[in-house]
Amino acid sequence: MKERIKKIFSFSEEKPDLILIQNPDEPFIEHNFFYVTCLEKGIFEGCAAILYPDGNLDLIVSELESQTAFNVKADIKIYKNKHEYESFLKESIGMVDTIGLNYNGISFSDFLKIQKMFPDANFTNVSKSFMNARAIKDENEINLIKKAAIIVDKVVEKIPDVLHKVTYEYELASEIDYYMQKNGADKAGFETISSFGKNSSEPHYSHGDVPLKSGDFVLCDFGACFKRYNSDITRTFVFGKASSVQKKMHKVVLDAQNIAFQKIKSGVKGKDVHNLVYDFINNSEFKNCFIHSTGHSLGLAVHDGGVGLNAESDNVLEENMVLTVEPGIYIPGLGGVRIEDDIVVKKDGLEILTKSCRDFIEI
Amino acid sequence: MKERIKKIFSFSEEKPDLILIQNPDEPFIEHNFFYVTCLEKGIFEGCAAILYPDGNLDLIVSELESQTAFNVKADIKIYKNKHEYESFLKESIGMVDTIGLNYNGISFSDFLKIQKMFPDANFTNVSKSFMNARAIKDENEINLIKKAAIIVDKVVEKIPDVLHKVTYEYELASEIDYYMQKNGADKAGFETISSFGKNSSEPHYSHGDVPLKSGDFVLCDFGACFKRYNSDITRTFVFGKASSVQKKMHKVVLDAQNIAFQKIKSGVKGKDVHNLVYDFINNSEFKNCFIHSTGHSLGLAVHDGGVGLNAESDNVLEENMVLTVEPGIYIPGLGGVRIEDDIVVKKDGLEILTKSCRDFIEI
Repeated sequence: MKERIKKIFSFSEEKPDLILIQNPDEPFIEHNFFYVTCLEKGIFEGCAAILYPDGNLDLIVSELESQTAFNVKADIKIYKNKHEYESFLKESIGMVDTIGLNYNGISFSDFLKIQKMFPDANFTNVSKSFMNARAIKDENEINLIKKAAIIVDKVVEKIPDVLHKVTYEYELASEIDYYMQKNGADKAGFETISSFGKNSSEPHYSHGDVPLKSGDFVLCDFGACFKRYNSDITRTFVFGKASSVQKKMHKVVLDAQNIAFQKIKSGVKGKDVHNLVYDFINNSEFKNCFIHSTGHSLGLAVHDGGVGLNAESDNVLEENMVLTVEPGIYIPGLGGVRIEDDIVVKKDGLEILTKSCRDFIEI
Repeated sequence: MKERIKKIFSFSEEKPDLILIQNPDEPFIEHNFFYVTCLEKGIFEGCAAILYPDGNLDLIVSELESQTAFNVKADIKIYKNKHEYESFLKESIGMVDTIGLNYNGISFSDFLKIQKMFPDANFTNVSKSFMNARAIKDENEINLIKKAAIIVDKVVEKIPDVLHKVTYEYELASEIDYYMQKNGADKAGFETISSFGKNSSEPHYSHGDVPLKSGDFVLCDFGACFKRYNSDITRTFVFGKASSVQKKMHKVVLDAQNIAFQKIKSGVKGKDVHNLVYDFINNSEFKNCFIHSTGHSLGLAVHDGGVGLNAESDNVLEENMVLTVEPGIYIPGLGGVRIEDDIVVKKDGLEILTKSCRDFIEI
């Protein structure tokens, strides 16, 4: 825990005297709060963490979660009401010169309140320090993501059987979520996508009461959240016999993903991976059909911020970054194919964490 | 849809020329975006909605979700990259005098970006306008919450049977989530709490690998999300024979909830309901054991903001507000009891939406 806090400060050019994380209400809870506390349980709405350059930590938490909070090695203050919360905050922060805040994680209204509470303090944005620290995973984080990846891998293997038992998209989603939890996921990392037929051409479609038909694409995109860390996998099947265009779409996406896998290693720019994948798909017969980025960082958040594989990412990949690689082809009215796997960047390549059923499967 | 937008403006004292909603990334997506668009599907990261006093709406959405967006009656612009997004935003907003923003929903960094894009504009905080508009539900919203309530009611009835089949807390959570989705929930509204024994004394404990023992409290707190609207229910059972203290705890909580039900009606202050419940529990043998508020507004968010039943809530209850009523008693080391139901405020009382198994049940 101390190491993580020191790592955050090491990325901060402005060297604030302390960093304040303040959680508003769900769902706007800062992942950074859990990054520094390593707390596996709890919500911690209306709570604060104060980080110091030497790695020390103060916590101000509500009575509601005091039992959980005491698992953290920190100076912990328990408040009963807003007034007490503010007194503790003033007491902890005192008369410091510069307060670091994550401007991406704090609402404008909370910023105004803090500015009013500490009128003599300077504020500096430490969002990049958090992002940079979290982009490179430590051993514990990689182990948790690996466990989340094993869960989705197991679930993928069940999908062919499940598809013979369900009728509607929403039923498939419920089975996927159920198997994830039965296999140890705390919850689904995000709303499971299980789209049939032409709905698969909408990358962010979730699921509805559409029945499965022979020849339909079946696109499943889901993730397991295990002790707050996420996996994220997508597989696209065809129910019944695949048409020649369906086969071609799947082959191009799979080849595109393999091209990304071959390119990824420490030292390569995120956008170079994306451009390679983008150009490959664009030079196929599916020009203009790849309409999102090639991948995103994975961790406490499903889209963990910072580094990514997209056209605008100047970030250079580094060892122990964890990313998804998810090329896709979408044809409105016909359907879409996406194949997504989770990887860890290594010095000379990568480690692929999710592996089940990557090849095309007619079910 | 137009009515909702007009309603938001009607609550705004500053009368901005327009209101801008800008969604950053998940999970920081504005519920207000879905309140005004009524979109049931999609994520809409990095998208914007511009609201006008006459009820009209502009949408700027990414290519990724263009198919879904076209379900909305709005002037829709589809962008391919950040540069295009910003041009569309500048084009739509133009040279207006005052831009309304939800300061509670916009990050400080996004505020700074918008301020830079529109250096001559004034900004005004419309967070209360959104909150006030959303606090009073329209017919369509109440119907969706009722459907979400029916789902959890059905699931509660299954818990006694399920408890004889499961061993661990996480298994119970997986069964609850599964039945919610099988009964039509799009997903769990929040991470299901299924705590056994002494873990039930931590109100925000979720679930772990703790096995069920005879005489344990079993506290289940969960909600169904149906077309973006949520229900939220809590039931506390005892597995096997209840001790006399367990029976007393349950009775006091149930009585406290009934007292709240009798008090709630249009015109009553939220804090008056809470104080009544708080005093009732505090005057029992369980002094200082009720450590959270009595209830919260329910809707697109599980904690829908604005009106609440708590010590600091000066809000007056109004017809068609939807709230939870959830008194509890928590004794560290022993366990906790919470009973939570969803209600609609009526002119002369309330309508209770969740009803199953409110009475104590030894399973």
